[in-house]
Formats: sequence, C-alpha cells, structure tokens
Amino acid sequence: MADEDRNLVEILEEHTEIDIAKYINYVSAPQAGAIATFSGTTRDTFDGKTVLELRYEAYVPMAIRCMKSICSSARSSWNLVSIAVAHRLGPVSVGKTSVFIAVSSVHRVDALDACKFVIDEIKASVPIWKKEVYGNGEVWKENSEFLERRKSCCGPKVKVVEEGDSGIGNNEVNQDL
Amino acid sequence: MADEDRNLVEILEEHTEIDIAKYINYVSAPQAGAIATFSGTTRDTFDGKTVLELRYEAYVPMAIRCMKSICSSARSSWNLVSIAVAHRLGPVSVGKTSVFIAVSSVHRVDALDACKFVIDEIKASVPIWKKEVYGNGEVWKENSEFLERRKSCCGPKVKVVEEGDSGIGNNEVNQDL
Repeated sequence: MADEDRNLVEILEEHTEIDIAKYINYVSAPQAGAIATFSGTTRDTFDGKTVLELRYEAYVPMAIRCMKSICSSARSSWNLVSIAVAHRLGPVSVGKTSVFIAVSSVHRVDALDACKFVIDEIKASVPIWKKEVYGNGEVWKENSEFLERRKSCCGPKVKVVEEGDSGIGNNEVNQDL
Repeated sequence: MADEDRNLVEILEEHTEIDIAKYINYVSAPQAGAIATFSGTTRDTFDGKTVLELRYEAYVPMAIRCMKSICSSARSSWNLVSIAVAHRLGPVSVGKTSVFIAVSSVHRVDALDACKFVIDEIKASVPIWKKEVYGNGEVWKENSEFLERRKSCCGPKVKVVEEGDSGIGNNEVNQDL
C-alpha cells in the first residue's frame, strides 16, 4: 500500500462529533508498536472570559489539501505507518473535540514527534477560522502561530468579511489549544 | 481538587483489555484545551522474528508507586489538568494495547511533552517485565532504556527466576515500542 493510502484526512460537517475510536482504529496495524494522538478541545475560559463554544469555518478544498501536505511532510521526517486527521466545522461546545490527530509507527518516538508536528503545522498553516463565543459577545480568531508564520503551505489565510459578519476580530491573541 | 486526585494509575489483570475511551474521558475537563495520548501496542515482528504475543508481569505495588511518582514528576515540569496511566499484565496479542497514557492540559505543548515524558519514564524505570513469544520460542526482555538507566525510581529491576522459568533472556535488545 502506498504511503498516501494510509493517510486519512477529513473535515467534518457541522454538528458531527469526532469519532475518536474510528481514527485510532484506522491507524492501528500489526506492524505498529505505537499510536500517539492529540485532541484539541474547547475550553471554558479564555483570557478571563467565559467561553460558551467555538465555531469553525474553513475553505474546505484548500484545508484538505493543506492537511494532506502536512501528512506528506511528516512522512518525510519520520517513519510512520498511518496518519489520521479530522477537523470539525461549525459550533464545538466546551469539552468537545474540534481537531483530532492519530499517528502510528513501529517505534514510539516517530509517532510522538510526528503527532506534535502535525498539530503544530495545522495550527500554523491550515486555513480554518475560529470564532470564540463568549457570554457577552464573540470574536473571530486566528492562531498566533499562523500570524507568526507569514507563508503558509496554502498561501495567506484571509477571512472574507461577509455582510452582517463582524469580520476578523483582534488577532493579536487567540485561544491557543 | 488536589493534583493527586487527578491522576489515575492502574495495572490491569490478565485478559483485561485497556478501555481507551475510559481514560480519555477521565482526563477530559472543561478547563482543558488539549489531550495527548500514547498507546503502546504489540507489533508482529521483532528483529526479523514473528511475534505472536507479549506477556507482561509486574511487582504491582512497586509498579503503581513508580508510575505515581512519574505522574508527580510530570506535574512538576508541566502545567497539567489530569493524567491517566494504564498497563496490562499477562498476554497481549498483536495489535492490542499494553500501555496507555492520556494527559490533559490547558495548552497543547504541556500535554504533548508530558505524555512523551511519562511513556519514556515508564519504559525506563517501572518494574514491569516483558516476555516476547515468537513462533519458535520465547524470551524475557527488559527495555533498553531501563538497562541504560542504572538507577530507577523504584530501585533495581530484577526478574526473579522461578523453577520452570526460562529466566531472563538476552537483555541486549528489546522490542522497543
């Protein structure tokens, strides 16, 4: 099986919870001795404010392409068996998972290091926007890592402001996972 | 809740599978934005030999004490919400999980780095012995990390050779997860 066949990259529609067991099962393999995972979950506070939920939007084809590129980069640095990446769109309430990564490998150091690399790269370069919904308002956020990295794998990340949309908020800070 | 209350350390009896969802659920919390996990699984080959299963034995009170000490060490280095550690005893067939770690934190770097630290320390210092069962024989193994570290948190790791037991095998190599 080609490497490419052992990557699973999915962006889930609104109100679809991430089935963690599915992705762990996907990366499980007789030749793998290690599985590392990362879940990014909505936490209840940011900067002293009560967070009710996060809401995600993405330009899906570009986000998928970008996440596949990250998987390829990970394979070029580590000896991996399988990679699974899933990201939700729409509202994600407190305690729920918005992004999940599972990586399997023969030896544990590869899975652990690649898993960290993949989430770092997703935060830094995938065009997915996040709105934080507080008890008293809401604001679009970009990841600080994204702002620090001027060139992403998919080009600049720009949130298009639509009519009735409050637009891009204060991007200097974010709810860093 | 005291830090100690948010650590769950378990050694499971023979033929009890690790319920990964249980441990992920344990570390989930509204204040946590990140959960990192690691699964050590039995892989099908070692050093060119076909592996049928691994078998684990432990001096349970000492292993539990040692794993709790590792959790405390992790908390002294990273800002963590909860830690869960589970290790199976007895036979673990190919593809099944023998050790599972879940760590939650506010920010992702803490969970990811602490998860790696905990599995590295478990491999290096917890008195759990592993027998590799091949198609044509079996051998007790110690982890190479353990042999490299002369002083463990629980003192020297010695496998007691009982009558009818083939004893400690060739310890120079191991099936590193």
